[in-house]
Amino acid sequence: MIQSRQVQLLFVLLLALLLGTGFMHGKSLEKDLDLVEERNEIFMETYKKLDPAGMSELYTADAKLLPPNSESVVGSDNLVSYWQAIMDTGISEIKLHTGDVERYGKALVEVSIAELHGEDGELVDKSKYIVIWKQERGTWKMYLDMFNSNMPVE
Amino acid sequence: MIQSRQVQLLFVLLLALLLGTGFMHGKSLEKDLDLVEERNEIFMETYKKLDPAGMSELYTADAKLLPPNSESVVGSDNLVSYWQAIMDTGISEIKLHTGDVERYGKALVEVSIAELHGEDGELVDKSKYIVIWKQERGTWKMYLDMFNSNMPVE
Repeated sequence: MIQSRQVQLLFVLLLALLLGTGFMHGKSLEKDLDLVEERNEIFMETYKKLDPAGMSELYTADAKLLPPNSESVVGSDNLVSYWQAIMDTGISEIKLHTGDVERYGKALVEVSIAELHGEDGELVDKSKYIVIWKQERGTWKMYLDMFNSNMPVE
Repeated sequence: MIQSRQVQLLFVLLLALLLGTGFMHGKSLEKDLDLVEERNEIFMETYKKLDPAGMSELYTADAKLLPPNSESVVGSDNLVSYWQAIMDTGISEIKLHTGDVERYGKALVEVSIAELHGEDGELVDKSKYIVIWKQERGTWKMYLDMFNSNMPVE
């Protein structure tokens, strides 16, 4: 026998799905911004500790880092080497200024600014970047990470 | 009176929603790849005609172009100027090699390679790029467009 309750339950499920996925593409939500800002804090702390292995753990297992003047960097070992190399150039701190965060399905798309500081704290480079965040076992990680400089070629 | 047909209809709607949105995040679909390849053909043709206004029309009204060694480029007039400036440097052709295309909600995320050719057809630069495509009045357009060189700094 068909229960009125079953129909109600289905309507609630439909509504939850619509609210949960269908209407949330490309919307900016305070909680998504908070979430990315939190992750960016961890990025900054990890970099400041000059911990390249910690940096690689901020990426999904299938992540792709697309840095300027380099092929794409894929895989945990290559990510460690990449961040070690950046640290070796004397960049002591990377300050992230979280800009726009938009949700598309299960991904968050971030467009922000990064400031790179040298050993004496001087500003070495100002970059813009796109990060696509995805959840991996409950933790938001970088799936695509691309940046380039805002400064003219010297 | 609650009809069994109503319940069936709700189940079909639920299934359609799940297939349509919930399960399609980050999946690579042949039709999405075809769609981006089609748009990339138009990009290449428009560039080859050295038509900067045509290039600007490939972007959404709220698009952001994030080129290396430059601030972000926003707005139709600035996009025209940007592409005019690239054409003025003597780049005669941009060959796009469509790589990965993944769907996230209502957006398509493309990670591909671009080869820039000079006036005599010589390869001037090889770049990787991320484009986030969104539909604007039924047409897929670039919403975010970021690239940087694969080649070492000279």
